[in-house]
Amino acid sequence: MTVNRRFTLIQRPSGLPDASNFRLVEEAVPAIGDGEFLIRNHYVSLDPAIRNWLNETVTYMPPIAIGDALRASTVGVVEASNHPGFAVGDWVSGLNKTEEYSIGGRDPFTQKVDVGLAPSPSAFLSVAGGTGLTAWFGIEAELKPEKGQTLLVSGAAGAVGSIAGQLAKRRGARVVGIAGGAEKCARLTERYGYDAAVDYRGKDVERLSADIAAACPDGIDLVFENVGGVGLDATLLHINRKALIILCGLISEYNSPRYGTRQLIEVQMQGATIKGYHVADYGMQMGEGRRAILDLLARGELVHDEHVLEGIDNALPAFLSLFDGSNQGKVMLKLV
Amino acid sequence: MTVNRRFTLIQRPSGLPDASNFRLVEEAVPAIGDGEFLIRNHYVSLDPAIRNWLNETVTYMPPIAIGDALRASTVGVVEASNHPGFAVGDWVSGLNKTEEYSIGGRDPFTQKVDVGLAPSPSAFLSVAGGTGLTAWFGIEAELKPEKGQTLLVSGAAGAVGSIAGQLAKRRGARVVGIAGGAEKCARLTERYGYDAAVDYRGKDVERLSADIAAACPDGIDLVFENVGGVGLDATLLHINRKALIILCGLISEYNSPRYGTRQLIEVQMQGATIKGYHVADYGMQMGEGRRAILDLLARGELVHDEHVLEGIDNALPAFLSLFDGSNQGKVMLKLV
Repeated sequence: MTVNRRFTLIQRPSGLPDASNFRLVEEAVPAIGDGEFLIRNHYVSLDPAIRNWLNETVTYMPPIAIGDALRASTVGVVEASNHPGFAVGDWVSGLNKTEEYSIGGRDPFTQKVDVGLAPSPSAFLSVAGGTGLTAWFGIEAELKPEKGQTLLVSGAAGAVGSIAGQLAKRRGARVVGIAGGAEKCARLTERYGYDAAVDYRGKDVERLSADIAAACPDGIDLVFENVGGVGLDATLLHINRKALIILCGLISEYNSPRYGTRQLIEVQMQGATIKGYHVADYGMQMGEGRRAILDLLARGELVHDEHVLEGIDNALPAFLSLFDGSNQGKVMLKLV
Repeated sequence: MTVNRRFTLIQRPSGLPDASNFRLVEEAVPAIGDGEFLIRNHYVSLDPAIRNWLNETVTYMPPIAIGDALRASTVGVVEASNHPGFAVGDWVSGLNKTEEYSIGGRDPFTQKVDVGLAPSPSAFLSVAGGTGLTAWFGIEAELKPEKGQTLLVSGAAGAVGSIAGQLAKRRGARVVGIAGGAEKCARLTERYGYDAAVDYRGKDVERLSADIAAACPDGIDLVFENVGGVGLDATLLHINRKALIILCGLISEYNSPRYGTRQLIEVQMQGATIKGYHVADYGMQMGEGRRAILDLLARGELVHDEHVLEGIDNALPAFLSLFDGSNQGKVMLKLV
């Protein structure tokens, strides 16, 4: 029998997850039914949203069940198929699980990908995958920054922020990023094209607010918010009239008691808008966004970084690197 | 000399204002210059927004200066005029001050009003004035509630909420109001046409959340937020996908340290929108909104309540009744 190792949830975490919440289990590789195909996962994407799916109540999709492997996007190769649209050897990507083998064909999400178009198959989980597309539609469809405007991006060195900053800069806006630590801040301006970087580490709202004010002398018109908490409060103190803030993520609040945002009154005073943003709303335009990103990559006009750990044994440290800020790009596991 | 009594700011309040912050001063009625006219104020409107103008920093208009009378909307009669468009005896309404006589003609805001169209000149400060128009554009232009949707209104028994509820009900939505105390809650359902009322008094987020859930069995699609704080947090726990929340006011936060809104994550999860809303954005359509409201009043299809105190000596208790919830309708002073 061929073994399928799966990173499963055994107990829901109440704060930051640790080893007690998960178990690596070995099962037989599942048999495929009619219309199904077997995927050998080469890369598994670990994303902050997974933390929310570990909770007992999730409002926008079912929680991950106790005993099940963690839901995650993967890219891999079809090893067996009873599906007319997928042949052995096809590269595919979809919303599968943190496991070595997944079954495709049960949902419409798994699609073939042309790995020849990308620098690596892993790109379909990073810059040409969920995080890159999140940046793309956040910038190109939601915020649409223009010359003369200032965009602030939090989590700016992360998988979404690093791409969002570059896309916004191409459109001519002033782009300011918030990140944790001098090294990440240097990366923002030197590698991702940000005009200015603000280090949030060790700062309260007042100090962070002063640094944001210095980096945004004309105030803030647009916000790509990935973090929440103290940084969002400090940001709201500097928004201009009719500012638009998209809430893409609030990673600082996923593991801790929810932070109380004190400056909502600025949204009222400035006639600003805060909008919850999900890339899934652009499902119909996903292929178009992906083609645009692959095109920029091929022309060498977009850089991206991946933080790849090898083997499913590294699922927990990879996942935790999302929350302690130690990751250096899109977090994923390489299984093959 | 004829005396002009003026309710002036002498010290900025740090929390709830009290008598130490204000002084009633007597001045000579001012002389009018070229293009100006003298208004004898009959009614002065006291609104929560004035509290924000007492702060040292106001983002969307200048703060009220120390030594100046409190900025306020008034309705009154022209007593002398050097302005070709305004004659002695004309009824006018505009953004003036909490004083017995104001000078018109220095800004474009003061306009003639046809008091024959309204049940009382005071209506131009209430249902056909700022609060009524705030309700009108909030409902008819921003939220546009429809049959099948649930709208939650906070401060529902207030000058804005009492009108907003009636307008929303006319459009066929389920309308639920939050108010303080059994008497106000009874008024919501018996007088303002609300489908259900929730009393926020003495409740924490958890208890309020349970009551809101019971009153909104299909969740909340639209929110007309006038209060903020605990009520907004409890509300956010029940918003549906793509909910729209307009922040019209956050009166619970004007006098106290700003409340920390903990449930912003629900906005992100539900792809909802929070939008700061100012009726001033509808400046060009104000006349149209006023005509629609006066028409509903004339047909007896809209009820409204005014909380009128007599004499400028009552400026402070009138103003404070906005914050302790003791007012029973639109708060104003009757000076003549």
